[in-house]
Amino acid sequence: MTVSLHTYLEEKTIFIENHLLSLLEQEDVPASLYESMKYSLMAGGKRLRPMLVLAVLEALDKPLERGIAYAAALEMIHTYSLIHDDLPAMDDDDLRRGKPTNHKVFGEATAILAGDALLTRAFGLVAEHYLTRSDVKAETVVRLLAELGKRAGARGMVGGQMADIEGEGKSLTLAELEYIHKHKTGDLLIAALVGGGLLGEASATQMEALAGYGRMIGLAFQIQDDILNVEGDSAQLGKAVGSDADRKKATYPALLGMEESKTRLQQLIAEAKQVLGKAGLEHSALVPLADYVIERKK
Amino acid sequence: MTVSLHTYLEEKTIFIENHLLSLLEQEDVPASLYESMKYSLMAGGKRLRPMLVLAVLEALDKPLERGIAYAAALEMIHTYSLIHDDLPAMDDDDLRRGKPTNHKVFGEATAILAGDALLTRAFGLVAEHYLTRSDVKAETVVRLLAELGKRAGARGMVGGQMADIEGEGKSLTLAELEYIHKHKTGDLLIAALVGGGLLGEASATQMEALAGYGRMIGLAFQIQDDILNVEGDSAQLGKAVGSDADRKKATYPALLGMEESKTRLQQLIAEAKQVLGKAGLEHSALVPLADYVIERKK
Repeated sequence: MTVSLHTYLEEKTIFIENHLLSLLEQEDVPASLYESMKYSLMAGGKRLRPMLVLAVLEALDKPLERGIAYAAALEMIHTYSLIHDDLPAMDDDDLRRGKPTNHKVFGEATAILAGDALLTRAFGLVAEHYLTRSDVKAETVVRLLAELGKRAGARGMVGGQMADIEGEGKSLTLAELEYIHKHKTGDLLIAALVGGGLLGEASATQMEALAGYGRMIGLAFQIQDDILNVEGDSAQLGKAVGSDADRKKATYPALLGMEESKTRLQQLIAEAKQVLGKAGLEHSALVPLADYVIERKK
Repeated sequence: MTVSLHTYLEEKTIFIENHLLSLLEQEDVPASLYESMKYSLMAGGKRLRPMLVLAVLEALDKPLERGIAYAAALEMIHTYSLIHDDLPAMDDDDLRRGKPTNHKVFGEATAILAGDALLTRAFGLVAEHYLTRSDVKAETVVRLLAELGKRAGARGMVGGQMADIEGEGKSLTLAELEYIHKHKTGDLLIAALVGGGLLGEASATQMEALAGYGRMIGLAFQIQDDILNVEGDSAQLGKAVGSDADRKKATYPALLGMEESKTRLQQLIAEAKQVLGKAGLEHSALVPLADYVIERKK
């Protein structure tokens, strides 16, 4: 990671986290529910989805403030999905980002409800917030919410998680594995890019480029995740290494071999950058963010 | 229940259920996830929330079709909340509406995801659907989604459920019990009425009356639920009777006594009708629907 990307990520993370907490409802919310939501939402993480929304607005020369509520909504959806995924009935994980998982701290019932509340807040927040902004048309907000609903739901992220659970212990084809990751990880990244494009009034060519870039870095992100689960450092990752192999999970290294997985990773990132170039977005932070996806250690 | 109300409910139930299934996404959704969502969504029930949306549009002399997507969204949210409430970590119920609960049929992981997907679909569906209708302004849709987010989330239904779980086994005051029910049951009924009002372009006076009516029948609904849990017929209810007492749950009959609970019920329904009358809505189906809340046997 270059020094400038490091500084960029740090600045943007502070900007995002400053807003995240203020956009969580606290008034009239039972204290334990609020604490549980806050615990997972503020537990760190890469903030990649919000980062992408802001990078798109920056690339389109629009004010970052315009994206903050949507960025926060995506992070809330990502966070709820992690809370539910970690539950005993799902992946049964005790650690997340080096800290005890939500249900380990607050109990299962509260963890389920905190996830439900974060998901609900994500949609409500976008609707509420953009009613107060005169620079975003109501129709854009409705399109944004339709996109979010599609990408986060049964046809998107939740569907990917379902296929992932059903695939455990089975031998999957590469196509099946790609289906899972396209939806489980990719869809919410695409929602970040396309949503940023909607808010930033991107042209049709730019929109297509943003969606294509999203598909490629989404897949690259997942391949890197699989690689880190084999070669990563558990202290840096904040979770156990080798858990995929223990669970006999289908992964890219398991299906393609480690070398081929890494080659594929490089190809995807190169293509993602090319796509940006064709839409005149090659000078934006989206380029170094593509590198970040494969250079990250956690 | 009068014959005409019976016919009214039957007609509207058919209308609602015909639309409900078609508004659930199936394409590109893993089969087990779709089946699990469909199982609970189509498991019957009173369809009270959709019924209220349609009754408001009818009262305001607007086409019922305008309300169907929002009505379906409310039923999806209600259904997801039941699926999650029934989970072993929550109420741990085996039966719902006389049938095995979702997790008993599909397993816990799928039940959690089916709930998440129904909740997500509710918001996405409203956004998607109203983009195609020229008789509803985009700004109205955004307001509708903001209302839904508030009523269904941490400040609303989820918050009520959290307070309910925390209150189990404790001795609650009447104010605490009313807080729980105001949010757990009342908020989604209010969302039905206020949302119907938004879609039907209700005047400010009419909106106020609809919200007030919602608050009153919401509370009445819960009191009747508590009464049925003592005096009801388990075959008609489709679930065990006496479970509240077994769990030492705070209920109206337990706190106020049975007679006082029934008096309160009658008062609330009378007031709800009065409020409608003041806004000129006394000739609508909302009046017999208020009676239905306390006359129902399940």
